[in-house]
Amino acid sequence: MPHETRFQKNMMVDFSPGPSQLYFTVEDHTRNAFRQGVPSLSHRSRAFEAIYQHTQEHLRALLSIPTTHHIFFTSSATEIWERLVQNLVVEHSAHFVNGAFSEKFYQVAKQLNKSAQEIRAADGEGFALPVKLNTELIGVAHNETSTGVALPKEFIYGLKDKNPHALLCVDAVSSLPFVDFDYSKIDSVYFSVQKGFGMPPGLGAWIVNDACMEKAASLQARGLPIGTHHSLPSYLKNGLKNQTPETPNSVAIYVLGKVAEDMARRGIGTIRKETEYKAVILYHELQRHPGLPPFVQDKTYQSPTVIVANPGRQTEKFATYLSKKGIKAGEGYGVHKGAHLRFANFPAHSKEQFELLVDSIQAF
Amino acid sequence: MPHETRFQKNMMVDFSPGPSQLYFTVEDHTRNAFRQGVPSLSHRSRAFEAIYQHTQEHLRALLSIPTTHHIFFTSSATEIWERLVQNLVVEHSAHFVNGAFSEKFYQVAKQLNKSAQEIRAADGEGFALPVKLNTELIGVAHNETSTGVALPKEFIYGLKDKNPHALLCVDAVSSLPFVDFDYSKIDSVYFSVQKGFGMPPGLGAWIVNDACMEKAASLQARGLPIGTHHSLPSYLKNGLKNQTPETPNSVAIYVLGKVAEDMARRGIGTIRKETEYKAVILYHELQRHPGLPPFVQDKTYQSPTVIVANPGRQTEKFATYLSKKGIKAGEGYGVHKGAHLRFANFPAHSKEQFELLVDSIQAF
Repeated sequence: MPHETRFQKNMMVDFSPGPSQLYFTVEDHTRNAFRQGVPSLSHRSRAFEAIYQHTQEHLRALLSIPTTHHIFFTSSATEIWERLVQNLVVEHSAHFVNGAFSEKFYQVAKQLNKSAQEIRAADGEGFALPVKLNTELIGVAHNETSTGVALPKEFIYGLKDKNPHALLCVDAVSSLPFVDFDYSKIDSVYFSVQKGFGMPPGLGAWIVNDACMEKAASLQARGLPIGTHHSLPSYLKNGLKNQTPETPNSVAIYVLGKVAEDMARRGIGTIRKETEYKAVILYHELQRHPGLPPFVQDKTYQSPTVIVANPGRQTEKFATYLSKKGIKAGEGYGVHKGAHLRFANFPAHSKEQFELLVDSIQAF
Repeated sequence: MPHETRFQKNMMVDFSPGPSQLYFTVEDHTRNAFRQGVPSLSHRSRAFEAIYQHTQEHLRALLSIPTTHHIFFTSSATEIWERLVQNLVVEHSAHFVNGAFSEKFYQVAKQLNKSAQEIRAADGEGFALPVKLNTELIGVAHNETSTGVALPKEFIYGLKDKNPHALLCVDAVSSLPFVDFDYSKIDSVYFSVQKGFGMPPGLGAWIVNDACMEKAASLQARGLPIGTHHSLPSYLKNGLKNQTPETPNSVAIYVLGKVAEDMARRGIGTIRKETEYKAVILYHELQRHPGLPPFVQDKTYQSPTVIVANPGRQTEKFATYLSKKGIKAGEGYGVHKGAHLRFANFPAHSKEQFELLVDSIQAF
C-alpha cells in the first residue's frame, strides 16, 4: 500500500469536493462511538433508538427541516437516485441535466425502464425559465458537483410552481448544509455525508414529504414493485420507532448527529456567512488572475460550495504548484479531467485555509 | 442518551449474535484508517484501489474463495437479498424457510413480484433430502441466525446436484468465516461484517460466480431492469478496476481487509477448531443442565456459531443472572423473544469467555 502518498495527503489541506477533508470533530466522535459500544448495539435496542432520534432532531434543527418532511438513511446518494425512481415513478420522469451527476440520475431512470426526459444545458451553465412538464417526477441538481454550477433557488421553486403535481426532487449532495431551502417548495432533497458534513463516506440522507409517501403507497397499492427494505413504506414503518429497516451504518448515524449538533453550536448562520466570504475571495482571485478563470462565467450560476477553475493547458502545472504549497485541489470531473481544478468550500474548510489558497494562487 | 447503559454494556462480555462484540483488532484498524486519510480518499484514486485489492485478496485467501467467484461490496446482507432477486430472477425463485431470516429472503422475492415458492420446515428444524425444483434461483440459509439451525453442507451441495440449472444462493451471514464451503457447489454466498468478522455494521460482502454474471447479463440483454449502480454488470465493470460503483464505506472495506489478514495470521484452522471447542462445551452444558435445553434438539442441525438455549419461562431470570455475572446474552428473535437466549460463537469470542459462560451456567 502506498503509505507515503497517503501520509503526505493527510498533511495537506484537501480541497477535493468529496470525500472531503474531515470536519474537525469527526475523528473524536468516532472514537467516542467505539468507547460507548455503538458498533455492537442492536438496531432494535433503546440505545440505538436514542441515537437515531438524536441525529434526526439535530439534523432537522440545523437545516430547519419542517415536520412535513421525513428524514431516512441510505448507504449513499447514488442509492437515493434508484430509490426515488422505484418509489415515485410509474412511467415518466424529467431531468434537468447540466453535468455528470444530474446526467447519472437521468440514466438511472432509463436503467429502470422509465420513460425519462432530459432538459439539457451545457456543462457550466444553468437553465432558462422554469417550464411546465408533463411528468411525475422532476430531478434537478441544486449544485452540480462536476462543474460547480449552483442553480438559483428561485428557479427550483419556479419548477414547483409550474408543476404542482410533479414531485420535485433536488440533489443537494454538495450544497448542504450551506443552502437554506424553503422545504414547502420541494418534495425531496438528498445528500451524502462525505461532502458538506465532512464525514467518511457510507451514509446518505433522504428527505421526503408526505406527497412522496403517498405516491409510493399508491404504487404499492397498484401492485407495482417499489423495492424492499428501502421502500418508503418500509422506511416510515421503522422510522416511526426510531429504527432503520436493516442493520445500518450505526457509527455514521451517531457521528452525523454529533456533527449536526456541533455545527448548530458554531451557528449555521456563521457557517453560511463564512462560506460566502470564502467563495467571494476565491472567485475574486480567479477572476483577477490571468489564465485561471472560473469555469462558470455567469455569476448567477457560480456555486459557493464547489468552485471550479479552468486553467486549461496550465492545469497540471497549477496543480503541481499548489501541491508543493501543501494544497490538494480536486481534479476536474470526467471529461474535464486535465482541464479543470475543483475547490470544495465546505464547513470543514477554514477561512485561514482559503486565505492560504488565495495567497498561493496570487503568487502563481 | 442512556450513557450508563452503554458504558455498562461495554464492560460486559457480549454474546449477542450481531452486531457482535468487536474483533480484537477492529478499533486499532479504524484508528489507523483515520490516521492514513482513508475517509477522505477518492474511490477513483490509486490509494483506494490498493485498499480494495488488499481486502479482496485477503478475504479470498482467508475463505479459500476460488477465482471462479467475484467478491462485491453492498451496504448490508439485507440489500443482497434484493440484488439477488433483481439480477438473477425473471419469474421464479424457491426458498427454504426455517426461521425469520430465510423467511425474509422469500418475502423479498414476493415484494419484487416474482413467483416465489417456499419449502418450509418448523423453526429449529432442518429439511429432508434435497429435492428437484423447477426454478431459477434457490435461496437457503446455511445458518439461520434467528433459531440457531445450521444445515449440513451436504444438504446444500445436494440441492445443486439435483438442480444444476438453478442458481444456488447461500446465506452465510452468521456462519462465515467459520464454515469452509466447496464453492464449486455454490453460485452465490453472502454475509455482513457485523457477525463473524466482528466489525461495526454498514458493509455486506456478496460472492458470485460467472453463472450469476451471465444470468444478470441475459436479463439485461432482454431489456429487463436489474437495478442500477448495484447491478452485477455495474459491480463487475468497476470491480475489474478495483473500484466500487458508488462512493463506498471505504473505512469498512479497509478494516475488513485488515481483519481478514489478522485472522489468517492467527490461522483459519485454529479459529475453526476453537469455534468447534467452544460450541461443544456450551452445547454439553445446555444438554446437561435441567431447564436450559438447546432449542435445536437434533445434533445434525445444531449451529456451531449461533447457539440457542430454550429456557422457556426461566428466560428472564436466566438473562438477569448472566447479566450480573457480566455476561450479555442475545435475546430470542421475533416470536421467540422471551423464551430463547442466543449465544454467538464468533472469532471475537475467546475460549476464556466461553469457559466463563459455561461456568456461570453451571452455577445457575
